[in-house]
Amino acid sequence: MKAVVYNGPKDVSVNTIDDPKIEKHTDVIIRLTTTNICGSDLHMYEGRTSFEKGKVFGHENLGEVVEVGAAVDRIKKGDRVCMPFNVGCGFCENCERGLTGFCLTTNPGTAGAAYGFAEMGPWQGGQAEFMRVPYADFNCLKLPEDAEEKEDDYVMLSDIFPTGWHGVELSGFLPGESIAIYGAGPVGLMAAHSAEIRGAAQIFVVDSHDDRLKLAEAMGAIPIDMRKGDPAQQILDATGGLGTDRGVEAVGYQCCDRHGKERSNYTMNCLVKSTKATGGIGVVGVFIPEDPNAPDDLQKEGKMAFDFGSFWFKGQKIGTGQCNVKHYNRRLMKLIEQDRANPAQIISHRLPLDQAPDAYKHFDERDAGWTKVVLKPGA
Amino acid sequence: MKAVVYNGPKDVSVNTIDDPKIEKHTDVIIRLTTTNICGSDLHMYEGRTSFEKGKVFGHENLGEVVEVGAAVDRIKKGDRVCMPFNVGCGFCENCERGLTGFCLTTNPGTAGAAYGFAEMGPWQGGQAEFMRVPYADFNCLKLPEDAEEKEDDYVMLSDIFPTGWHGVELSGFLPGESIAIYGAGPVGLMAAHSAEIRGAAQIFVVDSHDDRLKLAEAMGAIPIDMRKGDPAQQILDATGGLGTDRGVEAVGYQCCDRHGKERSNYTMNCLVKSTKATGGIGVVGVFIPEDPNAPDDLQKEGKMAFDFGSFWFKGQKIGTGQCNVKHYNRRLMKLIEQDRANPAQIISHRLPLDQAPDAYKHFDERDAGWTKVVLKPGA
Amino acid sequence: MKAVVYNGPKDVSVNTIDDPKIEKHTDVIIRLTTTNICGSDLHMYEGRTSFEKGKVFGHENLGEVVEVGAAVDRIKKGDRVCMPFNVGCGFCENCERGLTGFCLTTNPGTAGAAYGFAEMGPWQGGQAEFMRVPYADFNCLKLPEDAEEKEDDYVMLSDIFPTGWHGVELSGFLPGESIAIYGAGPVGLMAAHSAEIRGAAQIFVVDSHDDRLKLAEAMGAIPIDMRKGDPAQQILDATGGLGTDRGVEAVGYQCCDRHGKERSNYTMNCLVKSTKATGGIGVVGVFIPEDPNAPDDLQKEGKMAFDFGSFWFKGQKIGTGQCNVKHYNRRLMKLIEQDRANPAQIISHRLPLDQAPDAYKHFDERDAGWTKVVLKPGA
Amino acid sequence: MKAVVYNGPKDVSVNTIDDPKIEKHTDVIIRLTTTNICGSDLHMYEGRTSFEKGKVFGHENLGEVVEVGAAVDRIKKGDRVCMPFNVGCGFCENCERGLTGFCLTTNPGTAGAAYGFAEMGPWQGGQAEFMRVPYADFNCLKLPEDAEEKEDDYVMLSDIFPTGWHGVELSGFLPGESIAIYGAGPVGLMAAHSAEIRGAAQIFVVDSHDDRLKLAEAMGAIPIDMRKGDPAQQILDATGGLGTDRGVEAVGYQCCDRHGKERSNYTMNCLVKSTKATGGIGVVGVFIPEDPNAPDDLQKEGKMAFDFGSFWFKGQKIGTGQCNVKHYNRRLMKLIEQDRANPAQIISHRLPLDQAPDAYKHFDERDAGWTKVVLKPGA
Repeated sequence: MKAVVYNGPKDVSVNTIDDPKIEKHTDVIIRLTTTNICGSDLHMYEGRTSFEKGKVFGHENLGEVVEVGAAVDRIKKGDRVCMPFNVGCGFCENCERGLTGFCLTTNPGTAGAAYGFAEMGPWQGGQAEFMRVPYADFNCLKLPEDAEEKEDDYVMLSDIFPTGWHGVELSGFLPGESIAIYGAGPVGLMAAHSAEIRGAAQIFVVDSHDDRLKLAEAMGAIPIDMRKGDPAQQILDATGGLGTDRGVEAVGYQCCDRHGKERSNYTMNCLVKSTKATGGIGVVGVFIPEDPNAPDDLQKEGKMAFDFGSFWFKGQKIGTGQCNVKHYNRRLMKLIEQDRANPAQIISHRLPLDQAPDAYKHFDERDAGWTKVVLKPGA
Repeated sequence: MKAVVYNGPKDVSVNTIDDPKIEKHTDVIIRLTTTNICGSDLHMYEGRTSFEKGKVFGHENLGEVVEVGAAVDRIKKGDRVCMPFNVGCGFCENCERGLTGFCLTTNPGTAGAAYGFAEMGPWQGGQAEFMRVPYADFNCLKLPEDAEEKEDDYVMLSDIFPTGWHGVELSGFLPGESIAIYGAGPVGLMAAHSAEIRGAAQIFVVDSHDDRLKLAEAMGAIPIDMRKGDPAQQILDATGGLGTDRGVEAVGYQCCDRHGKERSNYTMNCLVKSTKATGGIGVVGVFIPEDPNAPDDLQKEGKMAFDFGSFWFKGQKIGTGQCNVKHYNRRLMKLIEQDRANPAQIISHRLPLDQAPDAYKHFDERDAGWTKVVLKPGA
Repeated sequence: MKAVVYNGPKDVSVNTIDDPKIEKHTDVIIRLTTTNICGSDLHMYEGRTSFEKGKVFGHENLGEVVEVGAAVDRIKKGDRVCMPFNVGCGFCENCERGLTGFCLTTNPGTAGAAYGFAEMGPWQGGQAEFMRVPYADFNCLKLPEDAEEKEDDYVMLSDIFPTGWHGVELSGFLPGESIAIYGAGPVGLMAAHSAEIRGAAQIFVVDSHDDRLKLAEAMGAIPIDMRKGDPAQQILDATGGLGTDRGVEAVGYQCCDRHGKERSNYTMNCLVKSTKATGGIGVVGVFIPEDPNAPDDLQKEGKMAFDFGSFWFKGQKIGTGQCNVKHYNRRLMKLIEQDRANPAQIISHRLPLDQAPDAYKHFDERDAGWTKVVLKPGA
Repeated sequence: MKAVVYNGPKDVSVNTIDDPKIEKHTDVIIRLTTTNICGSDLHMYEGRTSFEKGKVFGHENLGEVVEVGAAVDRIKKGDRVCMPFNVGCGFCENCERGLTGFCLTTNPGTAGAAYGFAEMGPWQGGQAEFMRVPYADFNCLKLPEDAEEKEDDYVMLSDIFPTGWHGVELSGFLPGESIAIYGAGPVGLMAAHSAEIRGAAQIFVVDSHDDRLKLAEAMGAIPIDMRKGDPAQQILDATGGLGTDRGVEAVGYQCCDRHGKERSNYTMNCLVKSTKATGGIGVVGVFIPEDPNAPDDLQKEGKMAFDFGSFWFKGQKIGTGQCNVKHYNRRLMKLIEQDRANPAQIISHRLPLDQAPDAYKHFDERDAGWTKVVLKPGA
């Protein structure tokens, strides 16, 4: 089959490799029909994290079940399913509490596994024609009857829509509150969409790209252009000096200050400043324990010069980590089914699998207009 | 009246000053019978924070109501009452949500007020014969019939018992879980007592003083002596490498590493290490936005070299801030009344007000055996 | 001043009575500009509950502060304020936990007080030119700058908007879930509006009046006409036999079955049937402990032939009771201010105070089109 | 193998039947070492609910794994495991939210399955030498090293300890609150034990049997002997007229009033009376949708003359239903492992399997001293 394979930093290609097979009775094989490129794929693409050569990319996957293991009860051949990016077993201490992003058995020795990801277990990605899904009854979300028609919405259930929603959740958000989202990439935009659906009184979205700020505004958010001055101060000014009830970090360790310089503490310290005393901050941008290629020394060892004194004095809370997609995907699926959510609105490109290498290049360079790329392996 | 007054760094004396008066219809005047010295008094005593000369210390106060303002309805002359260290108004946006540690009106321009405290509003402390309490119906906790008999337990409702309890609460603790508490000072010991009452399966308490570790052990905790090696590693070793479900920081910005060197990030980075992936950390040790006299440059500006990468990767949560004492004090009062809690067990010294200067000296030097000092103004 | 006064069953008139005065230092006097007639006023109007003759109606009140007691700090003369229908003290065990609908001091001997209400304390209502508000700093919600322009929205913060919202909250609702609301009177419609704002996937509204069902539909709900058959079965049919995640009772003890016969257990038993196993039910329709004039014997003593066996077997939950308005009114105010909520959309009549008697008559007879009546005392 | 088999009302025997086999790749076979008789077995024993003749009793099971299906990953031959009484699949909409007591696939057409139970699916019970466990990785709790030594404590993790704990949880209990538990059978006693572990200020336990009240008292509870007068009034008198914060129903539909007459609404109406306004009630006693053999007409159709008016007026909450054992069993296991819980303290009899018929007889007749019977199939 054809698959998008990593050859080394900034070098991907579409290669022909062996088809995946049922390896355990609880597996299924999926024929992918839609699979996305994600911002976190770029960490691997850039060689910033250790991704094996020859490994297949892709953790945002949707397709049709073509083969079913002997111990699979719920999922049937022909079902259209969307897979959470996290691989869970369903029976470990974390999975049984719904913390499927921190499965203790699918990536032994640590907590949390994913398809096509550096250091997240042996699972091949889905930017390919076929993919093997373990513990299929647990990991596959069966889609409703309008699955084909709204395929580009439903595929967002694999990662960015629940991840944006998770950021809002981790912040402790209540309907009627205000929220500031740092980063208008796909996850930040999905956080804004989530906050809008969940009844935010005011949503601020911080970014430095015109196209992204425009998308945020179209979703009902107030755009904060960080090129115009300290974004935290802009938010304070817009809220009578008090700040917002809640905040979301949707950029991660490669965040840049308003002059474009990479400073891993920039968004977090802005969030402490622009969030009210007693407020909460959800962090869904990725931060990593070691980053040997980082520009500054603290970041090299995963440390951050964090405004802990102000954070404590304001009595704020922080929640972090990978989204436990299964915790949200059924409810978000129903919002799409009932036309109350349409995450596909941020898609900028729908491309065949063959054009993946070119798409990686544009997306990595944050080229204007390349907001979200969706690949169509069958096309 | 006599009162414990600040004259400058490491210099307090018992002076005669004017008696407090009813200034507003909602005030009452208290005759103090028990008032404690708190670890956070030492920050001011040492001159590390800006406390005005001539100001009266004391935010852990219990006494008898001797005068009542015209608009006070609930509190009567003769009532025995215990005051939360926080001064709340009862009607601002934060007080009405129970966040009385972040009152927006009793210390205008910021959030949160306290008696006898640096930068926490104009309120005189209670290490004195009398004290004025504003918004008395809101701020006074009326004690039950056994108030005199258990006065040394009830006085702990003003701060350290609810603050220790708050640390456990902020960590997201559930009964049946394990918890590690860094610091076996009065607040840390109260956190251990709280965890024990609330059904912890295992409680670890980290410190480097024999007397404090012994008190922790007597409360049912497993003592971790940090002089014997990395305390986080000791906890990992004792929990099969997984760490505890929850952790509490009960030291604050002046925390020292196991070699006795002040390093403000020491306890927090240990907590990230010794807490499970998906676990929670409650921070009730005090951290401050500016600390010009700190030994290291980051701490001077209230920053910390925090292991944010590991924190995020493990999907942990942090809750921080002053305890909202009113949120807990009625329930904790009932635990004392029903003999299910006895926070007075940690008191090492009961002294008349006159001996306060000497007590400050010993407590500040962490002299062995000076765990908790209770002053008796009437004695 | 002029006020709407109760003379006996189905007999109200606009009389001239004494102006209210500041009685305690914590009082303010309000000049009413908008005050609503509520469905619960009808219980008193009909003589079903014991309302004193000569008492002034009105618990949904908005106006301007014209006089301020000496111990009032926050509220100023000239402020435009909206009062929760509950009268709270702010310092009792319930008020301090935010349970202001169950204040223990403003209606001694029981829990909960309200303006102009039977058995809810001595407080006069606001269907008048002026009203006295006790504990004004605690009870008055100060409105934003657009208070006059959106007065008809903001007045709904006194009762029906937070009460509808409370019904949704009591049901345990999460965004993305489905919900069924029984009753499309003002409270039921506000529950639907709330569910829509909070991200419901599907909202069903059950009623038997065309005008009300049309309003529900305009709000994004699916109307269920109970005249067409068992409403619970209609909902089961529309949800694949599973029922909704959540349900709200917004009718109360005078609910009628689909043949128009009063049966106090009708809506509750329908809710047990149409709610999923493990689902939740919020009850904001009023039920009363004694109802001597009820048509059936169980109801006379406040009992209901409730489907407890099915309720238990399905593992459902019920939350009940008066809304604690202060728990929600600030956040809902912000939703109005930011144009994200517009509760005034259900108003059918805006009338001067003099026309109150006529309005009571029409509203009591559920005359078509009389959805919600707003009185304008100054007009 | 030998197994306890139902022959008809009040007629059980130990018969020799076929051994269970691995039927699906996800099954395991357990050799039972401890298996309890539960109060809910008596509903079937008495013929009150429809239990099939020839079916094996037993849903409180602990034993050793003797055979493992090909798709079982976590559970190994030789493991000592305890099974929740609920049979879950791990992947349906309810199981994935932790609501394993309401599994949608293991008892098709309804929600919730159990071993050896009427109308709870096809699963044979464990009062036998061997038992088949489906979805073994999900359903088996692997016990720690001291499993044999504390076997009689660990077996209580199958049902009554988590069920008692669930009652406390459903009531909304917070540490420091008071709670009243109706029924001092095994589940009620476990609720008392749970409340004690979780930091209750006061625990009242209501019953009419001396031996049970004595056990409750030994656990730290205040016994309320309902033979001495209205138990709700006794609790009100003991709490200054206010009632308790929380209440638990641990009897079920066959509850009797204080004169020994079966009245299914007795405990619930007492709970409404003895619980504070704004308090919560957890119902873990079993109530059933149809009860054709009931003494009164409402109960025949699963209805109850419930004090709904008082319930609503007091703003109370009710949570109900089967315990989702997996939601609690790991944490409770750790409490046993750390010697912080010892549920085996209520066991009155340890008997070989052969004596089961006699034990059923005594237990059904509530013979003095027959509190809890544990069977030892291997003995």
